[in-house]
This record gives sequence, C-alpha cells and structure tokens, in this order.
Amino acid sequence: MTIRRLAVIGVGLIGGSLALALRRAGACAEVVGCGRNEAALRRGVELGVIDRWSTDPAQAVEGADVVVLGVPLGAVRAVLQAIRGHLAEDAVVTDVGSAKLSVVTAAQAVFGQLPPWLVPGHPIAGNERSGVEAATADLFQRRRVILTPTSATDPGALERVGHLWRAAGADVLCTDPEHHDQVLAATSHLPHMLAFGLVDTLARWEGVEEIFAYAAGGFRDFTRIASSDPVMWRDICLANREALLAALHRYRADLEQLTALIEAGDAEGLQAVFENAKATRDRYLPLFEG
Amino acid sequence: MTIRRLAVIGVGLIGGSLALALRRAGACAEVVGCGRNEAALRRGVELGVIDRWSTDPAQAVEGADVVVLGVPLGAVRAVLQAIRGHLAEDAVVTDVGSAKLSVVTAAQAVFGQLPPWLVPGHPIAGNERSGVEAATADLFQRRRVILTPTSATDPGALERVGHLWRAAGADVLCTDPEHHDQVLAATSHLPHMLAFGLVDTLARWEGVEEIFAYAAGGFRDFTRIASSDPVMWRDICLANREALLAALHRYRADLEQLTALIEAGDAEGLQAVFENAKATRDRYLPLFEG
Repeated sequence: MTIRRLAVIGVGLIGGSLALALRRAGACAEVVGCGRNEAALRRGVELGVIDRWSTDPAQAVEGADVVVLGVPLGAVRAVLQAIRGHLAEDAVVTDVGSAKLSVVTAAQAVFGQLPPWLVPGHPIAGNERSGVEAATADLFQRRRVILTPTSATDPGALERVGHLWRAAGADVLCTDPEHHDQVLAATSHLPHMLAFGLVDTLARWEGVEEIFAYAAGGFRDFTRIASSDPVMWRDICLANREALLAALHRYRADLEQLTALIEAGDAEGLQAVFENAKATRDRYLPLFEG
Repeated sequence: MTIRRLAVIGVGLIGGSLALALRRAGACAEVVGCGRNEAALRRGVELGVIDRWSTDPAQAVEGADVVVLGVPLGAVRAVLQAIRGHLAEDAVVTDVGSAKLSVVTAAQAVFGQLPPWLVPGHPIAGNERSGVEAATADLFQRRRVILTPTSATDPGALERVGHLWRAAGADVLCTDPEHHDQVLAATSHLPHMLAFGLVDTLARWEGVEEIFAYAAGGFRDFTRIASSDPVMWRDICLANREALLAALHRYRADLEQLTALIEAGDAEGLQAVFENAKATRDRYLPLFEG
C-alpha cells in the first residue's frame, strides 16, 4: 500500500512531520506540498520534507492518491472548496484538526453530501512549536491517532488512512466525531484555555517582570501549552465551540466551589479536592502520551 | 561559617535535600532530624540525610546553631511553640514555606514579638514528589531562594541564612513577606489551584478512563503540579488565603471574558488573547527556573 503521491496542504509541524515519517518508512513515493508562504515551501524542499510544491491546492492534489489537510481548522472549508473537482479518482482525504465535527460539517456543505473518501483524523501529538522547521520524522512514534469516520466513509478509505498513520509509527483508534470533540474539549481544549488565560491575565498585572522572575519549573510546565500557535487555537475554539463551552462551564462552576472552600478556610474540603486530584492523576499517568 | 549543628524539623523533600546539599558542600558538621514518623527518620539516617533524630522538636534543636523548619505551613506555629525556650543562644531559625506572612504572624503570636533570629525563607525549588526518599543534594543548584526578613530580623542572622542557601547551590533574593505572598499567589498558588481543580473536575466526569486515555503530553505537563502533596497545598491555601483569593478573583473574571469571546465566536478577540499569552510566555521563558 505504498502511496503514489501524497499531497500535504499546509506543510507545518504536523503535515511536515507526517511527510517525513512516511518517507522514512518508504511508504510514499512522492510528496507535493501546498501552502500560502512560498519561502516556507522552499524551505520544505531544502529540508527534504516535500519534493515539490504549489500554492494552488487544486494543482497540488492533482494525481495524488492521498491528500492530507494540515491547515488550521478555519481554513479547511476553503481548501475543500479549492480541491473540489480536482481530486484523483482513487484519492482519499484526511485532516489533522483537533476538532472533528466542524470538518464533517464543512465537507457536507462543500460537497452537498458526506464524501465516502473523507476520513477525518486527529493525531494526539505535536508540541508548542509550529512550522516546517519544527517537523520531525519521529513526532508520531507510539502516539495515538484518532480517526473519526462518518456514516458515509468507505471502509477501504478508512483502512488506507489507518495504514498511513501506522506506517508513520502511530497507534490508530476510531470513534465518532461528536464523541471525539467532547473528550478533546476536556483533555486538551479546556487546559489550553486555562493556560492561555493565566499567562494573559498575569501579563496585564503590575510588576509582570518580577512575577515571571519568581516563576518556577511548575509554572513553566503548566504554561507550556500557552506557547502554542494562536491562529490554530483560535480556530479550534471556534470549531469546537459547543463542547468547549460546556467544559468551561463545568470547570468554572467547580473553580467557584474551590474558591468558596478557600474563602471559608475549609481545610478538610480543600484537602479532599487535592487528594482526589492527586490520586486520579497518579492513577492515570501511565495513560498520558508524549 | 560552617554550621556546627543543623536541626531539620520536617525531613521531607525540601528539608532533606537542604541537609544533603550542605553536607556535600562540607558546610555542616552534624544534622539532627525531627519529625513524627519514626520510620521516615530511620530511613533518613540510612540515606545519609541526617546523623540522628528525635521526635521531639525541643530536643532536636538543642545546641543547634541553625534550625530549619521543613514542615507544612500549618505545623509551623506548633513547632515554634515546641522549640520556644529550647533554642541555643546563637541559633538562627528559618523555614521553607511557600507563604511567608503566616510564618511571621505565627512567630509574633508565639514569642510575643518578632524574634531577631527569625529569617523566613522560600526556596523556589521542589517537584511533585515528597518525603525523604525524594531528597537530593542537587535540588537547589542554581535555584532561587527568597528570604523575607522582618523589620526585627538581625542582619547577622539574615547573612547566616543567606550563606547557608548559597552553600546549598542557590541564588538568594530578598523581599518583604507581603510582596512575596502576592507574587507567589500569582505564579505558583493560583496555577496549582487551576491544575488541582481541572483534574478534580475531570475525575468526576462520566467516561473518565477514556478522557485520560486520550490525554496527551500537554495535559501531562499542565497537570504535573496536581500531583503535589495535598496537605502541603491545603496549608498554603489557608496560609496565603487573602492573596490567593485576590488572584483567583482576577483570574476568574478574565476566564469569564475569555468564555464570552468563545460564546460570541469573536475570532479576532480570541487570537489577541492567545497572541498576548504566547508572546509574553516566550519573552519571559528564560527567567523560569527548573
């Protein structure tokens, strides 16, 4: 199942790393990159991430049997629109966005129905860096990739995309888009909001320099995700708005209760919350990736 | 300025590591440990952290020229009460608590006035582990220690405690207790509340196993501090209640605004928050310890 021609629309950390991993695995004969930034695409060729490139998605997907959308979620619909009518007969299309329902909705809108060749996906990998310079062939090694086939997805297309990710070193799980979005709102999107929110808050405090000068390793780790790509996260918020709001609502109510415990000086109540958190984290720690 | 006899009340991660660091530096002739758990104290002797021990603080500080309180903040007052009248003529006393005003208040209450030999301190070091088994001589290497002398602190006492920390490998800063507590509320106590709160919230969600199974490296790092010692953090919350509540209040108001941006689908507003957070973190990152 070697890929004849892989088209990567959006050659950033994720798209670039996938191309590198597939090339290294010998799973891919040719990689065509596509993006808006010509300098980055030229750099992609220099780094051996892609063989050639085009800034036109329609041209980039020509003859490709596998198309990977590595663009921020907000650009998915426009890219689907651009490649409509230009896909090869046997092409499968997948994406790497952190929310999946919005991709399904965009495809439905652009194609008038859910295409059988669409396999939405989400690699649980990456880091706070971005851009093709950050791409590495190892990024997906032993990481999980969640595929969220729709009711219309062709089993053969699902199998081909699963094979691709396994060739890149990942473990493949499947679930439905709605469920994916709810779980990721809790474990990823909500924490990102809390971290971005904390740094943004402190940045506006008086004496910010001194505040950060007193910060320790705990703060550095807690806020690492606040160095993530702002545009990507803007798009995730908008794409997974409902599930994220539900998670935020729940969290804010619990934070209000925790604040009330501190206000009341409730030693027992505070200890119970911290013990439950510590016990839960320590119990599930072996499950956390990366 | 070799220490004749160091008394460590509370031989855990911090107190134990300080003893190990001072011994390795040849800055300390003898270490007496004190705690409530005899098995842990025996383990401390086995590990070479302390030379001998007592479960009675009054006995442990006898003849010691330096006394370090390594107990949770909630135990500081009782320990000061217990050692009252038993300190050597030339003894200086310091502590390692994450909040400093409460230590000053406890000393004022126990001794009827602020003692000249008291030098409250806070090493910006440590990790989510606890107990003497976790102690290492390297814990304070190139870490910051904040000393918060009171108006009554003798300059010679301050100098001796500063020397001790520098011998342990740390950089020493000074500020006043109130200011310390406000800054630490922002950079340490608030993030701990957010992380403890998140894991506690998710632990009570349906499908918690699957939630954590989908968690990635970002989640692991974000929640690392939620594996910290619950009793220590209960005490910090109570000891730094006012400053922590002020920080929580401010954060919650900003989180409400961020939620409103998501509700409104305000792409520009969201991107501005994330960009400010990322730029701020990336700018100050070199300052973060550990």
